[in-house]
Amino acid sequence: MSQFRQNPISKHWVLIAPNRGKRPEQFADGPVMPVNFPEQDADCVFCPGNEAKNQEIARFPDNKNWQVRIIPNKFEALSHVPFSRAGEFFVHRAGSGDHEVIITRKHNEPPALQSIQTVELSLHVFRQRLLDLYEHKELVYVQIFYNHGRDAGASLIHPHYQILATPMLPTGVHDEMAGCYHYHRDSGKCIYCQIISEERRQKERIVFETEDFIVMSPYASRSPFETWILPKEHSGNFQNITDKQITALAYVLKVTLGQLYVKLSDPALNFYLHTLPSPQFKHVYNSDLSYHWHLTIFPRLTIWAGFEYATGIPVNPMPPEEAAKFLR
Amino acid sequence: MSQFRQNPISKHWVLIAPNRGKRPEQFADGPVMPVNFPEQDADCVFCPGNEAKNQEIARFPDNKNWQVRIIPNKFEALSHVPFSRAGEFFVHRAGSGDHEVIITRKHNEPPALQSIQTVELSLHVFRQRLLDLYEHKELVYVQIFYNHGRDAGASLIHPHYQILATPMLPTGVHDEMAGCYHYHRDSGKCIYCQIISEERRQKERIVFETEDFIVMSPYASRSPFETWILPKEHSGNFQNITDKQITALAYVLKVTLGQLYVKLSDPALNFYLHTLPSPQFKHVYNSDLSYHWHLTIFPRLTIWAGFEYATGIPVNPMPPEEAAKFLR
Repeated sequence: MSQFRQNPISKHWVLIAPNRGKRPEQFADGPVMPVNFPEQDADCVFCPGNEAKNQEIARFPDNKNWQVRIIPNKFEALSHVPFSRAGEFFVHRAGSGDHEVIITRKHNEPPALQSIQTVELSLHVFRQRLLDLYEHKELVYVQIFYNHGRDAGASLIHPHYQILATPMLPTGVHDEMAGCYHYHRDSGKCIYCQIISEERRQKERIVFETEDFIVMSPYASRSPFETWILPKEHSGNFQNITDKQITALAYVLKVTLGQLYVKLSDPALNFYLHTLPSPQFKHVYNSDLSYHWHLTIFPRLTIWAGFEYATGIPVNPMPPEEAAKFLR
Repeated sequence: MSQFRQNPISKHWVLIAPNRGKRPEQFADGPVMPVNFPEQDADCVFCPGNEAKNQEIARFPDNKNWQVRIIPNKFEALSHVPFSRAGEFFVHRAGSGDHEVIITRKHNEPPALQSIQTVELSLHVFRQRLLDLYEHKELVYVQIFYNHGRDAGASLIHPHYQILATPMLPTGVHDEMAGCYHYHRDSGKCIYCQIISEERRQKERIVFETEDFIVMSPYASRSPFETWILPKEHSGNFQNITDKQITALAYVLKVTLGQLYVKLSDPALNFYLHTLPSPQFKHVYNSDLSYHWHLTIFPRLTIWAGFEYATGIPVNPMPPEEAAKFLR
């Protein structure tokens, strides 16, 4: 079973997840991505025809022509176990939570190449899974993310999103929420709304805008072509997104990923959704007012080296102004 | 020129270093490490025979048979420029500081394969560079680190350490110092001394010990085989290390890297030294008493994926107890 462990100095958490591991000798080799990408691969456990190889949470549409399917992660990093916390010098918690996989149908179609309808369906699934998972009182935070390519940590080529629900607010999300809270406390404003306003004034880091969304390279980009997608209207909570906004977002996400795919020759990348933790925490940090949901796309075009891990300062060789200009 | 930029939400810094960059199209390809490793390569700018291709800060011994050589980094991420700080919504500072390279002689000998004498000479150079660089009042923190292999961010195969001196305390180092300070304030003890005591009691994460040093897998290891080397006697400051301790540390470092090299078939890895910032900050966080210098070895056997970047929680498939047992 996995275990969250707290660094006694920084108080940052680490997830020790041995059921995902290999024997020590096996760490010498990494996974290799296949070169040819057929639309369907009979050996792929995520492909149509192999549905019986996994348990299923849901499929959309609910028949054999499903386009999106949700399954539990077989090598789950987190599972439903009672919450526990050790009280010794070293602190840990059981790795309780949830780990699911959202599979899209075609073996060779990452979101950048999918139809807007498929992206839209996936976004509907995101909203539904967030609403469902936050019904579980022991789940504090639900992280939806996507890994594309070996250099981005993907171990299977068949396109899939993952959901990890954690029993505590993760360090990084907490720090971000705290930053938003402090800004809101001092100014009465949402800092993401302020960033949007400042970026629209300065213009040089905006990739494109629609009526509802803004796509931009953030000022302190951590990697070349890091890209944010933000709703223009203040909203802390992705779960509150309307059907109409989902349609608009599907277009924006597809176009943004398509641009990166074409202009950077299909780079390895991650993207992830930052939205509020469980509604039971909504009064923490006044977060409905101070927080603003967003999607972060994080291409993996540089490798963090000793300096980054030692100091926490990412070195990024691509100024975001140039990145935005290149993507426009 | 490079620029530090502050994330307005988390307040974390990023270093935008475009003079190290490529054209946007070039990001599609990464560097490739050569397959054969001769002791000397006439095309390598770090090899003997090509000394004239770089400026030189110092060499040891000071003749043509040098074993260790210090040069400025040609593609410096930080340089000597006046300190500045913007006062607008977005905050930046000029990328002032220093960037040096410490080269060891043989093209095909990383520290894991070097003689203990060469490792010892490099450690003497570390101490000397720290003492020299901290004479410069504008340098707040000096980071010494080593990248081995493409997966660890090394762009040149010829073994070399790097030194980056920053004009502010990096986020990660600050968080660690603050954690040490809070523990010391509450308990009157150094938390690293307490960790050593606890590890010696529990025994299962210790790799080996000598009279002066302990080598261990940390409780909240962020990656498989993350390894710490700590002096047993409390010391905040690597610059205060004695010649006798350097001799002892050279043995410990060489053996530890050698074990990783042999047992994991030469893995990509980083290692880095954490020591106190400039002496002008010695009263900050009572750090002489609360901080404890150490070396961190960070093998790059997993790839951080969307979850890690989204939440700040590294997922590590290798429990440190197993890692230590494997390395013992």
